[in-house]
Amino acid sequence: MSDVADMTDMGDRTDLGCAAAKVRGRPRSPAADAAIIEAALRLLEEGATVDGLSIERIAREAGVGKATVYRRWPGKDALMLEVLRSLEESGPEPAGISVRDDIVTVLEFMRRRGLAKRNSALLRSVVTQMHANRELWRAYEENVIAARRASLYEVLRRGVERGEIRGDVDLELLGELFTGPMLTRAILHEWRELPEGLAERIVDTVLEGVSPRG
Amino acid sequence: MSDVADMTDMGDRTDLGCAAAKVRGRPRSPAADAAIIEAALRLLEEGATVDGLSIERIAREAGVGKATVYRRWPGKDALMLEVLRSLEESGPEPAGISVRDDIVTVLEFMRRRGLAKRNSALLRSVVTQMHANRELWRAYEENVIAARRASLYEVLRRGVERGEIRGDVDLELLGELFTGPMLTRAILHEWRELPEGLAERIVDTVLEGVSPRG
Repeated sequence: MSDVADMTDMGDRTDLGCAAAKVRGRPRSPAADAAIIEAALRLLEEGATVDGLSIERIAREAGVGKATVYRRWPGKDALMLEVLRSLEESGPEPAGISVRDDIVTVLEFMRRRGLAKRNSALLRSVVTQMHANRELWRAYEENVIAARRASLYEVLRRGVERGEIRGDVDLELLGELFTGPMLTRAILHEWRELPEGLAERIVDTVLEGVSPRG
Repeated sequence: MSDVADMTDMGDRTDLGCAAAKVRGRPRSPAADAAIIEAALRLLEEGATVDGLSIERIAREAGVGKATVYRRWPGKDALMLEVLRSLEESGPEPAGISVRDDIVTVLEFMRRRGLAKRNSALLRSVVTQMHANRELWRAYEENVIAARRASLYEVLRRGVERGEIRGDVDLELLGELFTGPMLTRAILHEWRELPEGLAERIVDTVLEGVSPRG
């Protein structure tokens, strides 16, 4: 399995990358951050592999010293997470008003991410490589995916509290009933389209059920 | 992406492997068939790769001549499909009575296949290797998966005709609403359980919907 679990991303960014800088109490220059990330992206675009890249090589490409990179990120994994996030749209931000609309927002994020991955060879390659690297993927799961998942569960829990969603289905399965069809379309059946309006159709049909209502 | 699309298997076996024998009009010996397939499995279990295996090596391991293998299968891909199928349960056979029960049968097949793959290193390895081989996977898709998918669509179509399923959802999406949650659980979220009764819960919840019925 590879480049797969990433599509369960449903929350928003954490700031793993900032930890080291904060500890040392030094202000970060956004320009240097960007230069380092762009250098890594440039190397990846030129065919470097995620595993093959070293902090040293990235620093050289960015025209900074290794210490400048380490001041910002504790290691290559943390930097790579930030590189991947720079390629992604930021996660969905459920507005917190209508539960139905909030679930649509989550699924729409997944749809757009699926499209982005189909259309960007670079994103595709980085995700696939990161997925093949167990350590790196675990870090991504723990720092990015987990937050997105928690954000969906939050919406679903609110739906149950308000009586908009049945309370007799466990939360994990509930999440999968909504996200499963979109994941299937976006990842497993890549030959199928991801048209606008798909998120709405899935959410409304799962809410309503597919047997005719009386 | 790898070892993924296979879980959309939903139909039953075709007989690609028999074609060559039929053309030549020679009776096949089931014992020789089994000996050849077992030889291939033995080599795979001992660590041979699907790509690395040759008809010659399989024939030698089975104690038969190359011609004996070619009389049964037109080439290695056809033989490998049969090897994979020998590791799998045979596809679901919807009984054709209750649409709900027939969909449960399809999902239950997917659940059991997910469990089998988690529990059998050999099945896992063969599926993953076959998935990485574009030609081989295409043959598997066209000969095995397509039939399973058609079988599900047949059930869904019957459900719509009988008024048990809404007619305003397109067939592909309808299929994904049922299979998506099971695929998500079985493939994408391998750390989640695949308990008995899961197929029934998914089918009933998708039929009924997750918003409370008045």
